Amino acid sequence: MVIDIHGHYTTEPQALLAFRDKQLAGLADPMRKPATNELGITDEQLIKSVEPQVKLQKERGSDLTIFSPRAAGMAHHVGTEATGIEWTRMSNDLIHRICTLLPGNFAPVGQLPQHPGVPPKNCIPELELFDPPLTDKWWYPLYEKLCELEMTAMIHVTSSCNPAFHYTGAHYINGDTTAFMQLVQGNLFRDFPALRFVIPHGGGAVPFHWGRYRGLAQEMKKPLLKEHLLGNVFFDTCVYHLPGIELMAKVIPVDNILFASEMLGAVKGVDPETGHNYDDTKRYFDKLDLSASDKQKIFEGNARRVYPRLNSLLKRRQK
Amino acid sequence: MVIDIHGHYTTEPQALLAFRDKQLAGLADPMRKPATNELGITDEQLIKSVEPQVKLQKERGSDLTIFSPRAAGMAHHVGTEATGIEWTRMSNDLIHRICTLLPGNFAPVGQLPQHPGVPPKNCIPELELFDPPLTDKWWYPLYEKLCELEMTAMIHVTSSCNPAFHYTGAHYINGDTTAFMQLVQGNLFRDFPALRFVIPHGGGAVPFHWGRYRGLAQEMKKPLLKEHLLGNVFFDTCVYHLPGIELMAKVIPVDNILFASEMLGAVKGVDPETGHNYDDTKRYFDKLDLSASDKQKIFEGNARRVYPRLNSLLKRRQK
Repeated sequence: MVIDIHGHYTTEPQALLAFRDKQLAGLADPMRKPATNELGITDEQLIKSVEPQVKLQKERGSDLTIFSPRAAGMAHHVGTEATGIEWTRMSNDLIHRICTLLPGNFAPVGQLPQHPGVPPKNCIPELELFDPPLTDKWWYPLYEKLCELEMTAMIHVTSSCNPAFHYTGAHYINGDTTAFMQLVQGNLFRDFPALRFVIPHGGGAVPFHWGRYRGLAQEMKKPLLKEHLLGNVFFDTCVYHLPGIELMAKVIPVDNILFASEMLGAVKGVDPETGHNYDDTKRYFDKLDLSASDKQKIFEGNARRVYPRLNSLLKRRQK
Repeated sequence: MVIDIHGHYTTEPQALLAFRDKQLAGLADPMRKPATNELGITDEQLIKSVEPQVKLQKERGSDLTIFSPRAAGMAHHVGTEATGIEWTRMSNDLIHRICTLLPGNFAPVGQLPQHPGVPPKNCIPELELFDPPLTDKWWYPLYEKLCELEMTAMIHVTSSCNPAFHYTGAHYINGDTTAFMQLVQGNLFRDFPALRFVIPHGGGAVPFHWGRYRGLAQEMKKPLLKEHLLGNVFFDTCVYHLPGIELMAKVIPVDNILFASEMLGAVKGVDPETGHNYDDTKRYFDKLDLSASDKQKIFEGNARRVYPRLNSLLKRRQK
């Protein structure tokens, strides 16, 4: 079984986007507010909307995708706390319906109704300028709930409100790198030994600068990164070329690597150097000189361990 | 000859730092303003202050370091435009004195007196939130002057005003990645074919995500990155472990890689896995299977080409 742990719903029906336009327009002009949050999307439309993902799963040989709302679409910084809560609920509901309709292909991940400056205690946090780092006690109520529910959090930023930061080319990668560095600086997993985070896009710049992070941790008198973080922090494999994946497999322990492709996501084209899609990341692993048991970990075993609720679900289905 | 193109003056005399404290304290309380900007630092003190760098050059086998003020110390966002101009001049003056005193060991790089929101036309730019990207016409007067003077710019951010972004562990690397992505999005070198940028810290996350950047450029209908950027954009080698350097040598053309160690800089410790300093980056290249001519390019030839004024200087010294 091959589990792809990072997929966004980037093929959502037009009705959802039209609702969002109206919702935000309504902030400036109440007359433009949507009349209803019933989108009128049928099950058939939902199934049709994820046909591209299902087709690529088949072609590329992955089985199950952990599926979340469009990352840039979350846009926590936009609108008000109230519009954010409504938008989150609607986005998550669609994901839930898809995963119920196609349980063999998708397992659900929800976004949080974060809003800048509002504490996560109200489940409305925001990892934005001047909000405290992830290791701050501000976040603890959310972490307690994650642990209680045995849920795993992917730390994934959303779109950027600053045109100087391209969202998939700079802001995402910077968010990943920043999150990891915050965890290096703190001692979060001493307080939450059961908390699990997945950092997407191969961990941003982290594997490439692994020596820098080992060295910084050392200067801060932290334990070795393996003990300090790697029991709780995992990286996905959304890195779109073989040399990057090779580096990752070299510096990150195999137990911390979770297969993912982010399809359909940031980069959809065909790499002229290989003739294959950039984001067909499974092909890169097929080329690596890893044992069958290591590959099983990356493709399935680690995902089952890091997402225990997914594992229970699969077991109930006798997989 | 081995040229290290990225070194900061992190061993500056206490008198400089005391001046800066007084200067900034003077903003809140004019009584605390420094009475003079004559620091009273002697040539002997300056030479003594860079003994650690000179000693390491000898031990590690590099010859000449391109030397700049402490990156985090630039702190453009702090104080006023006027304090920034004074501070820049004083910092650059010290670098100039050191390079005059020890011309065999150091060649100078200056910081710019940037200040948030002030256009670079006045030579007071700031690459901060909501200022336009590097490809914007806002920056053009500065680029015209760089081209006219045949000078090369390293795009290096300074300290972070947000505790969520660790300066050497997140903000620097994020700045590097952001700068590269801005250049991908723009067409700057069509207007400035002779402009040259060096992106430090191995280019941030860029080599690790080289496939992502090739793919994003392709979706934006840009030329191949080689044609679009690599005639004008170069990467230093401040990457503190062998696998990172190996990756870099694999994906970045040898003509675009400039040796650098950033000593004494972000990471000063000894890597327990190798028994050598993390930032002794020359050792990593010594281990790579590169031809002698490629190594000569990385250690010297590229630096002479990318920094033509340095080359003239070395020639005048018959090197």
